[in-house]
Amino acid sequence: MNIAVINGPNLNLLGSREPELYGPETLDDIEARLRVVADELGISIEFSQHNGEGEIIDRVQDLRGRADGLLLNAGAYTHSSLAIRDALVAVGTPYVEVHLTNIYSREPLRRRSMLARDAAATLTGFGAYGYELALRGLVRMLRISG
Amino acid sequence: MNIAVINGPNLNLLGSREPELYGPETLDDIEARLRVVADELGISIEFSQHNGEGEIIDRVQDLRGRADGLLLNAGAYTHSSLAIRDALVAVGTPYVEVHLTNIYSREPLRRRSMLARDAAATLTGFGAYGYELALRGLVRMLRISG
Amino acid sequence: MNIAVINGPNLNLLGSREPELYGPETLDDIEARLRVVADELGISIEFSQHNGEGEIIDRVQDLRGRADGLLLNAGAYTHSSLAIRDALVAVGTPYVEVHLTNIYSREPLRRRSMLARDAAATLTGFGAYGYELALRGLVRMLRISG
Amino acid sequence: MNIAVINGPNLNLLGSREPELYGPETLDDIEARLRVVADELGISIEFSQHNGEGEIIDRVQDLRGRADGLLLNAGAYTHSSLAIRDALVAVGTPYVEVHLTNIYSREPLRRRSMLARDAAATLTGFGAYGYELALRGLVRMLRISG
Amino acid sequence: MNIAVINGPNLNLLGSREPELYGPETLDDIEARLRVVADELGISIEFSQHNGEGEIIDRVQDLRGRADGLLLNAGAYTHSSLAIRDALVAVGTPYVEVHLTNIYSREPLRRRSMLARDAAATLTGFGAYGYELALRGLVRMLRISG
Amino acid sequence: MNIAVINGPNLNLLGSREPELYGPETLDDIEARLRVVADELGISIEFSQHNGEGEIIDRVQDLRGRADGLLLNAGAYTHSSLAIRDALVAVGTPYVEVHLTNIYSREPLRRRSMLARDAAATLTGFGAYGYELALRGLVRMLRISG
Amino acid sequence: MNIAVINGPNLNLLGSREPELYGPETLDDIEARLRVVADELGISIEFSQHNGEGEIIDRVQDLRGRADGLLLNAGAYTHSSLAIRDALVAVGTPYVEVHLTNIYSREPLRRRSMLARDAAATLTGFGAYGYELALRGLVRMLRISG
Amino acid sequence: MNIAVINGPNLNLLGSREPELYGPETLDDIEARLRVVADELGISIEFSQHNGEGEIIDRVQDLRGRADGLLLNAGAYTHSSLAIRDALVAVGTPYVEVHLTNIYSREPLRRRSMLARDAAATLTGFGAYGYELALRGLVRMLRISG
Amino acid sequence: MNIAVINGPNLNLLGSREPELYGPETLDDIEARLRVVADELGISIEFSQHNGEGEIIDRVQDLRGRADGLLLNAGAYTHSSLAIRDALVAVGTPYVEVHLTNIYSREPLRRRSMLARDAAATLTGFGAYGYELALRGLVRMLRISG
Amino acid sequence: MNIAVINGPNLNLLGSREPELYGPETLDDIEARLRVVADELGISIEFSQHNGEGEIIDRVQDLRGRADGLLLNAGAYTHSSLAIRDALVAVGTPYVEVHLTNIYSREPLRRRSMLARDAAATLTGFGAYGYELALRGLVRMLRISG
Amino acid sequence: MNIAVINGPNLNLLGSREPELYGPETLDDIEARLRVVADELGISIEFSQHNGEGEIIDRVQDLRGRADGLLLNAGAYTHSSLAIRDALVAVGTPYVEVHLTNIYSREPLRRRSMLARDAAATLTGFGAYGYELALRGLVRMLRISG
Amino acid sequence: MNIAVINGPNLNLLGSREPELYGPETLDDIEARLRVVADELGISIEFSQHNGEGEIIDRVQDLRGRADGLLLNAGAYTHSSLAIRDALVAVGTPYVEVHLTNIYSREPLRRRSMLARDAAATLTGFGAYGYELALRGLVRMLRISG
Repeated sequence: MNIAVINGPNLNLLGSREPELYGPETLDDIEARLRVVADELGISIEFSQHNGEGEIIDRVQDLRGRADGLLLNAGAYTHSSLAIRDALVAVGTPYVEVHLTNIYSREPLRRRSMLARDAAATLTGFGAYGYELALRGLVRMLRISG
Repeated sequence: MNIAVINGPNLNLLGSREPELYGPETLDDIEARLRVVADELGISIEFSQHNGEGEIIDRVQDLRGRADGLLLNAGAYTHSSLAIRDALVAVGTPYVEVHLTNIYSREPLRRRSMLARDAAATLTGFGAYGYELALRGLVRMLRISG
Repeated sequence: MNIAVINGPNLNLLGSREPELYGPETLDDIEARLRVVADELGISIEFSQHNGEGEIIDRVQDLRGRADGLLLNAGAYTHSSLAIRDALVAVGTPYVEVHLTNIYSREPLRRRSMLARDAAATLTGFGAYGYELALRGLVRMLRISG
Repeated sequence: MNIAVINGPNLNLLGSREPELYGPETLDDIEARLRVVADELGISIEFSQHNGEGEIIDRVQDLRGRADGLLLNAGAYTHSSLAIRDALVAVGTPYVEVHLTNIYSREPLRRRSMLARDAAATLTGFGAYGYELALRGLVRMLRISG
Repeated sequence: MNIAVINGPNLNLLGSREPELYGPETLDDIEARLRVVADELGISIEFSQHNGEGEIIDRVQDLRGRADGLLLNAGAYTHSSLAIRDALVAVGTPYVEVHLTNIYSREPLRRRSMLARDAAATLTGFGAYGYELALRGLVRMLRISG
Repeated sequence: MNIAVINGPNLNLLGSREPELYGPETLDDIEARLRVVADELGISIEFSQHNGEGEIIDRVQDLRGRADGLLLNAGAYTHSSLAIRDALVAVGTPYVEVHLTNIYSREPLRRRSMLARDAAATLTGFGAYGYELALRGLVRMLRISG
Repeated sequence: MNIAVINGPNLNLLGSREPELYGPETLDDIEARLRVVADELGISIEFSQHNGEGEIIDRVQDLRGRADGLLLNAGAYTHSSLAIRDALVAVGTPYVEVHLTNIYSREPLRRRSMLARDAAATLTGFGAYGYELALRGLVRMLRISG
Repeated sequence: MNIAVINGPNLNLLGSREPELYGPETLDDIEARLRVVADELGISIEFSQHNGEGEIIDRVQDLRGRADGLLLNAGAYTHSSLAIRDALVAVGTPYVEVHLTNIYSREPLRRRSMLARDAAATLTGFGAYGYELALRGLVRMLRISG
Repeated sequence: MNIAVINGPNLNLLGSREPELYGPETLDDIEARLRVVADELGISIEFSQHNGEGEIIDRVQDLRGRADGLLLNAGAYTHSSLAIRDALVAVGTPYVEVHLTNIYSREPLRRRSMLARDAAATLTGFGAYGYELALRGLVRMLRISG
Repeated sequence: MNIAVINGPNLNLLGSREPELYGPETLDDIEARLRVVADELGISIEFSQHNGEGEIIDRVQDLRGRADGLLLNAGAYTHSSLAIRDALVAVGTPYVEVHLTNIYSREPLRRRSMLARDAAATLTGFGAYGYELALRGLVRMLRISG
Repeated sequence: MNIAVINGPNLNLLGSREPELYGPETLDDIEARLRVVADELGISIEFSQHNGEGEIIDRVQDLRGRADGLLLNAGAYTHSSLAIRDALVAVGTPYVEVHLTNIYSREPLRRRSMLARDAAATLTGFGAYGYELALRGLVRMLRISG
Repeated sequence: MNIAVINGPNLNLLGSREPELYGPETLDDIEARLRVVADELGISIEFSQHNGEGEIIDRVQDLRGRADGLLLNAGAYTHSSLAIRDALVAVGTPYVEVHLTNIYSREPLRRRSMLARDAAATLTGFGAYGYELALRGLVRMLRISG
């Protein structure tokens, strides 16, 4: 089983960007921890981060047939991108939507997700640890339905 | 550390109520599994289920000083109850909001949560396994901030 | 065939509450008349009235497997209770929504029903006689589909 | 006592039009059944069906002084016609609004009725049998107030 | 100069329809008075009343090249008919919109006019006398611009 | 009988302000013409123009007991001033709302009038001649009801 | 294969009605051209134009069983008529919605179509030539699915 | 004269719940002070607090014929409960709506009161002292109208 | 301690303006009574009434440093004046918002207050007596915080 | 004459992406067919597909002066991209908007097009054949106006 | 060239009113600085400040023919005054809208400007220095177009 | 001090794109002029233009620690890009939002800026000269706060 983790715009700034809001871990820290969990679960895992909407679509398309599931934090595109949703639906890979913060306690524009409707599951507010929970949840889900 | 799990209206029907939507596990199954995880994490845990809004408020108030954190699935009251939110804020116990299904892929009325704004974290769509993930996430959070 | 009639908040005040609007019959009068009709139709019938939302949910759950159809006048909860709707859908008993007055000639808040979407049929404005019509309609419907 | 039954656009297609939604009875079947009930109740009854909005208005005006009550299913004009409402209010004949299906479980545009506000009573979802119930309800109402 | 006066649905009921709202004059009374004023102003005048939307459109089209101006009270179609507006714009005859009552003191649905945007002038609330004022205003306007 | 004509902000600029929209007459021209009509009708008339909202309220209050009717063009305050409406209702003098242009063919903000609801009648788009029509209409109305 | 072309209100004025907007062709010109195309495609074709909403419904019903497909330009009824939509759905004949102008570059009221939801295809802004394109598209579609 | 004071959900937590927002007095302190004022005014007084919506309705019904006026702070139910409003209107006892904080300076959901429309008077933001002012105002009102 | 009472547009008409709505007391009666209460409380008090929005702003600015608190009934400006709110916030004097009637049982436009957000407290529906209650409440508040 | 065909995000997946919705043809199939039609019409044609919004803008800019008309299917960017609209307007090349499916029978978000307002014409729901129709329509339009 | 600077309600309080928001400069400081810049640019300049809406209108009218351009900070009237907009449009003097703070980072009511639509340019958030920038920009604009 | 000027989609077309709206200067002209002003102010300056949203984000991130302030004209992304806003907030560099035209006199979609809330200042409608004013304003601001 292969899982791909896709991070969207500005998530490369983690650790230095508003750490009181997003926490002290960098994206490297998160990816390192996910590799450990992946080993424990006996799966392979790969990572990418993109600032452009079209690049995320390219990435989703490229993963077709290669990834069994996705962990996706599309950052600010979460709230507006019908095109990313189309790519996810077209490719058909199950995905879990992750956010570091609880987006429902933030400003109104961040409370609507274009990507949640077709997600298998969603999870917000657990900080960096949320990626690990989401990975465990996704793998469980794929093993049950697989 | 003591965690209380509160389930709201109609969740006592789990297993028999629309199992293709909510899954085959009964509420007893879920609670049994959470007891095992609680033992593993070295914490105590207690459970309740209520069909009345006032009863949930009574319960939240009763747990003040006794529970360190809450797992809450308020069912349909999630979408309308300012009174439950007031109780949670007044008592101040950190809580995680859990839903069996991904509520964002359901009808519009179920996409707004009155309780998410003040939650520590939220998690939807992982089915019964979501309670376990939420419990692990909540305990981690309390241990970091404690 | 067993039919249950459920009346919601303040309907116990019928007869004394704004009789120019709701008519002179008391809830006892209505139930007495429905017993006569039930006998004529060869069915059994039972009644309850509740001021609390949670109590209506309890009642709907208790009737599972015991009632073949429901006559429901949920009073003011008609316009807001997603939790009662969930109970009705979870239990799956067919029901007819009844109102004494024509709610569509009243103020805006009373023109939206949370319970109509999943009702088998609806009926408003016939006063106390509307319960009798609804009972006949419901029994006819159950006999055709049964 | 004379009652007129007015059916609006496309109701002449009943029986052949989406029978899984509107039922197998034709408009002729319904009118035949209503004649039997009218005889039982000792009243006279007359029928018409119209595809044009102006024709329904003409009909409502023609019935002034001749009909004591109306059964009205204005079909799709139900949701938009202020002009039919004006005719009904100007003529002043009490009327009951009938729909074969439960319009509140259909698409949003069909949930608003322009004609309900001034109706004596409303009734939806009982199929062809609903006309009979509405006729009984209307006659009862006229005899009490008459 | 030839002026045509077009009255819409239910205006044939004037005098008997809610006289406390619309006044005691019948449509015949109004037309008789307008003939006197037309003589005084040295113009010819003609009249029609229609319950159907399509008939008003037919009438507007028929008057092309024959009427120099229109007085129009489209009744309830005022608030919904884009098709009548299209006919008026296509034909290009200047028209004045008249209403017996002050529609802005009535219910919300009657406060929007589809026909006002392209009218030369509007006038409401002067009762039957408003037709006379509107006729004088329209003739003045045509003489100035003619 | 005494009639007062009140003009609101910027109407003192008539004639020079966008004459292609508002016409070539100055406010003096209009008042001169209204004096002639008042003589013909055998009534007295008085005039004022105000740029301030409070001054219009002062004026309306001052006219209490002295004016039998008002012609009011409140200019841009038409669309926002609840305070002028209160003054008009408190004083109780019947008034006609006049506008030079057809406000319903202008931008959205100008299509809502705060003052129309309590007006006896309204009239728009007849240019300067509209004041004369409104005066005749108002006097007729007062003589009938007087 | 038989195709019927239905044109709605005011389309009989084509050529003389705002030619800078709708083009110089008359409805006769368009129908003549469509007859040529129909011959080329080896199908039969028939035409009608109606100013009344009810007449369009009558026409749609009359064509049941006789037409294999419809080209429909319902003019201003496009934006409001649920009754025409009901007729189209009840009869079940596939249809293509055509407009001479690009309705999406016009005023807001003309950007919503009640008829588009159930259309097989839509096409706007190609002027008179759009009818020909629509006819070719419709015939192709029927031959593929037939 | 007998006055009943009804407090809604979470008001039993007063003093400990967000004291910087709601003040340091407990509900016992407030009731003690109101007893002193009641003695001064020569009236009797009684108290209750409820977390459940149905319980407040029960209470309002029970007080019928026994209380001459109500002081009501329905807490979070203020903003949603049509059922409590129905109970108040059905029973007909005059009531004053009280809130400790100025609800109009809080978040949007707390600015709409379902109960204000039928209240005799409302009062917010005076803290615990507001109950005393409301009691004096209510008694004055009852003595004038009594 | 010095308190200023500011009344807005049309409140000078009290007693004669719709007395069934606003009560029989004149503004003089209210001010006389407030002087008696001020003496009892040992404070000084001063009064003004203004029809103009700018005059109220002038007054609020003039009172800076001279008044310790304000009683404000801004009449119809309550619902629209951001400029008065700015003056109150700029000057910083605490104020209580008073209304004679319960504005929440009136038409929608009167249910929104621009001034409530920054008020210390609000009070409606106690009629003339409400000014006295508000004065007592304001003085209490200033003495506690002073 | 040179025509450019621009396809937006995910259209490279045609044929494999939800073929029951979008049809079995691949983008290569469509382009091959369009080359044949272009030859028949005696014009040259070129193609591109882009997943990124900025790339579509680059492409539109690059085609300035080189393409006489565009066929554009912007996929999901259709519903949100003001930037693509700006590019189209800035460059000024006439374009036809094409969609494979009838977007008006899909979910609400897909019914609004940012690009339709400035398009010469629009066409939806004819599947792959729609590109051919659109090409013929566009060429006809350019030849008439050229 | 003559420029007039008009400041609206409460701007006379600058320096003392919320200096952390509006800065330490008084209105006198700003005007002094603008006089220096005016000298540098070789133009004359004049100033006024008004708390009343009508006074601003009077001022705008008085400046007709005397001022070549206006700098306008209408304070809170910015967000509501159609009457000031009318005066500006009637008089036709070009104006620049200035605000000390960035109004788009403030509460929603302050984000809509009634005066921006007809302004030549707008500028916010530069504090007192913004007046100088606006003056330079306005003079440049007038010299180019003059 | 180093300032970066970032221009968004389609601004490379300046001079040729709708010059009557955007002015005759090219982007090169503007940048040349800004270099002169930068020299005068004794600062360094650098420029870039991007059609892609992701490229602007990349650019904003790259400038972290290198630019002391930004001049930003994000073109059409101004109205929709939460992702650019996130980049600006994450990086924390102060920026001024510039637009050539007064966006508040344009269509509704262009009146909302996603980027204004966190801008230091905003400026619209001064054409190419606005960049110069914004640069002076930004430098002044940085020197005061620096």
